[in-house]
Amino acid sequence: MKLALIGVGLIGGSFAAALRAAGEVDHVVGFDVDPEAVSKGLAAGILDRVVVSLAEAVSTADLVVLAVPVGAMRPAFAAIAGHLPPEALVTDVGSTKVSVIEDARATLGGAFHRFVPAHPIAGGERPGVEHADPHLFRNRLAITTPVADTDPEALAAIERLWRGVGARLERLAPEEHDRIFAAVSHLPHVLAFALVEMIARSPDADAKFAHAGAGFRDFTRIAASSPPMWRDVCLANRVELADALDSYRSRLEDLQRAIKSGDGAALEHLFRVASEARRRAADTP
Amino acid sequence: MKLALIGVGLIGGSFAAALRAAGEVDHVVGFDVDPEAVSKGLAAGILDRVVVSLAEAVSTADLVVLAVPVGAMRPAFAAIAGHLPPEALVTDVGSTKVSVIEDARATLGGAFHRFVPAHPIAGGERPGVEHADPHLFRNRLAITTPVADTDPEALAAIERLWRGVGARLERLAPEEHDRIFAAVSHLPHVLAFALVEMIARSPDADAKFAHAGAGFRDFTRIAASSPPMWRDVCLANRVELADALDSYRSRLEDLQRAIKSGDGAALEHLFRVASEARRRAADTP
Repeated sequence: MKLALIGVGLIGGSFAAALRAAGEVDHVVGFDVDPEAVSKGLAAGILDRVVVSLAEAVSTADLVVLAVPVGAMRPAFAAIAGHLPPEALVTDVGSTKVSVIEDARATLGGAFHRFVPAHPIAGGERPGVEHADPHLFRNRLAITTPVADTDPEALAAIERLWRGVGARLERLAPEEHDRIFAAVSHLPHVLAFALVEMIARSPDADAKFAHAGAGFRDFTRIAASSPPMWRDVCLANRVELADALDSYRSRLEDLQRAIKSGDGAALEHLFRVASEARRRAADTP
Repeated sequence: MKLALIGVGLIGGSFAAALRAAGEVDHVVGFDVDPEAVSKGLAAGILDRVVVSLAEAVSTADLVVLAVPVGAMRPAFAAIAGHLPPEALVTDVGSTKVSVIEDARATLGGAFHRFVPAHPIAGGERPGVEHADPHLFRNRLAITTPVADTDPEALAAIERLWRGVGARLERLAPEEHDRIFAAVSHLPHVLAFALVEMIARSPDADAKFAHAGAGFRDFTRIAASSPPMWRDVCLANRVELADALDSYRSRLEDLQRAIKSGDGAALEHLFRVASEARRRAADTP
């Protein structure tokens, strides 16, 4: 099978490497707006060939994987729309699903039914194809969010590929996906970025970072993530994220009131609800 | 040396076990308001003897370690004040220092100069003496915050003990300690507790926790921490923590404005400052 990888980064590169390791793919054509990314992809043996246009990338592909920041999905779909072979499958790995589906629907025309929206719940501390790992998706969740006109055979084919690289499959409605991930992924990223940025701008930033313990490092690990990717996620899922931020800010106000007024019982109650829920949410992979 | 351990939990239990392993301590008397904690401490071989009064715990001690939540420090100091042998050293492991020093100064009388305020930057995901670990402090920071009337010999003795269990030593002014840890420890705990509590209370809490990835689990690990301990920390360091929360909430407001108005450049800039700072703050232990 010939794979066209649009966007050569950690997730796309890992998926390409995993599909090759599973014997599903024997030729990978890569495209990225960043020439350094494609060079690294070639050097890492993830790409066999690099092309300079999206049309050329997909024109002979059996499978097209879009692994660009979600803000770049629409122009990418638009650029490949007229050049897809009739039987080609198209999928993505974007962290938001409603916006990506809208982008595909608006641009792919008759090929839209062969587009299978997907989101693997995996990542690494460091972005970039040079950190790609064919085992990245083992025992991780891969979520598909088909819509009414998604071709069932295309869906089955993409889900089979994710199973083949070790992922556990789940289907969600796109709206449900975006609401859930606003709470458990997009909001935490925003909160971690905001904390590290606030400390970085403080006059004694060096002393603060020097005294950070393991708890701080765990809490802020996600703040090392790719800025353009997360900018796009925030904008693509802005309605759900803004809702989650509203709820969160109002919780912080309650907390601050309890702290200022010395209301230990209110603090302990809130901390207890959280602590028990966090322990129940077991550390499964 | 005879150690009196006041508060038998993860940190105090680990310090007692580490001092015994280092050959510094050969007898540990324990006191805790929770009978289960002392039973576990005896069962784990960390305590040699349990006593039912603070006065009895310290009356024959060479070293007294207070490892109770910071809100319980003042009554503990008050209860031991009249019963300390003249040469006994007193120290603590509390996460806030200004409040503990005030408590000690207000209660210890002539013994105050032999009190050495200390804070080891170590912890575990799970509280309780049953998770105590004699290696917990190896290569971790232990901070002392002496004041003008702290006896230099007492300070040197306590710092020698921390070095003996593998910690790296540092001295800070108490106010500086509290400001730094408000930003890199107390605020992150509050933020993690608030997020998990918010999700736990939402109607689709189970679906959300079920879809949480490694990033969420890292981010919320500290929300499993002991609720009464963190209630006390928040109240003891409330001025610094409220300042940090004010700054943080105003950063979140800016972020939310950028998200709602679709200001991708502002988002990316903030994320980039954070991402670069987080990577510079290397993952040293």
